[in-house]
Amino acid sequence: MRIPNHIGIIPDGNRRWAQGKGLSKEKGYAYGLHPGLELLRLSQKLGVKELTFYGFTVDNTKRPANQTKAFQQACIEAIHCIADEDVSLLVIGNTESKMFPRELMPLTERKIFGQGGMKVNFLVNYGWEWDLANLLRDSAQESGIISGLKSNDISRIDLVIRWGGRRRLSGFLPAQSVYADFFILDDYWPDDKV
Amino acid sequence: MRIPNHIGIIPDGNRRWAQGKGLSKEKGYAYGLHPGLELLRLSQKLGVKELTFYGFTVDNTKRPANQTKAFQQACIEAIHCIADEDVSLLVIGNTESKMFPRELMPLTERKIFGQGGMKVNFLVNYGWEWDLANLLRDSAQESGIISGLKSNDISRIDLVIRWGGRRRLSGFLPAQSVYADFFILDDYWPDDKV
Repeated sequence: MRIPNHIGIIPDGNRRWAQGKGLSKEKGYAYGLHPGLELLRLSQKLGVKELTFYGFTVDNTKRPANQTKAFQQACIEAIHCIADEDVSLLVIGNTESKMFPRELMPLTERKIFGQGGMKVNFLVNYGWEWDLANLLRDSAQESGIISGLKSNDISRIDLVIRWGGRRRLSGFLPAQSVYADFFILDDYWPDDKV
Repeated sequence: MRIPNHIGIIPDGNRRWAQGKGLSKEKGYAYGLHPGLELLRLSQKLGVKELTFYGFTVDNTKRPANQTKAFQQACIEAIHCIADEDVSLLVIGNTESKMFPRELMPLTERKIFGQGGMKVNFLVNYGWEWDLANLLRDSAQESGIISGLKSNDISRIDLVIRWGGRRRLSGFLPAQSVYADFFILDDYWPDDKV
């Protein structure tokens, strides 16, 4: 089995999962923590070198406040869980907006946790337009567009896996995803993975 | 039925189709002309407002010369066929390389043919890095990234349809495709469409 070097994860379907369980929409996010950790450990075991989680986006922050608070909280907790593993962790997104949780600021430079190892990137208040805007022209010309992006510490993605059945990128790292294979699962993200 | 405003077409599988028919790879491209015209007319009938064909890319030009010549020729012929329809046609790609066919230069500004109507864009020697490089910073900041791209006359895409079973964009208009739904057909592009 050929293992992709870098997998992008779009963990969609939390709200639909919650509604299916008779919960209010915003309750779904907390149930995404365990699946994320499971997936991270499985990826480490398989030798994946880099994993990028689509936390939440600038687009997402237009939702009702009870939802934005719930997914911000879920991202903070997920990132704390990830920091308990052996990883090289980076949180990336638009920190200039108040939607970016302050407590994650120290993680916006890549940090080694435990033994280090797999690169894990977590997008928080990420916007594709924010990422592409003001391309650092000189570095982009010398060594490719990605080096000129705000997300330049995230490498080219080999495989994007999206949960929740929707067949689109929804703004996920457009430059890094240009050659990525897409794999869509109809399961909602909080559903059991096995 | 909801009709997408703008459909992107990735007509892949020409070479595999040719091999399956016992032909040499480069013979496949010419068989893609008729399906393209069929699709264009169907889209017009359904009220699609804009159609973008992925002709060939800067990446593709690294292939053997008998293939590059064959797909250049097929694109030229396809574009001539399209110009016989009622369309508003634009050819777009990196014209500064000798891989861009000279005879298509007059079409690198949008032109009305027949009664005009549907916008048809045809990517010829297109490169996603070429498109994003040197983003016109001021216009991009005023009215969104797309307006700063070299492909700024191509609007946001609603649906990308790819033939040939591969589940990736392969560099197809990364900014315009960020919210597009993907639909993948296992049929090769020259296969009968009905």
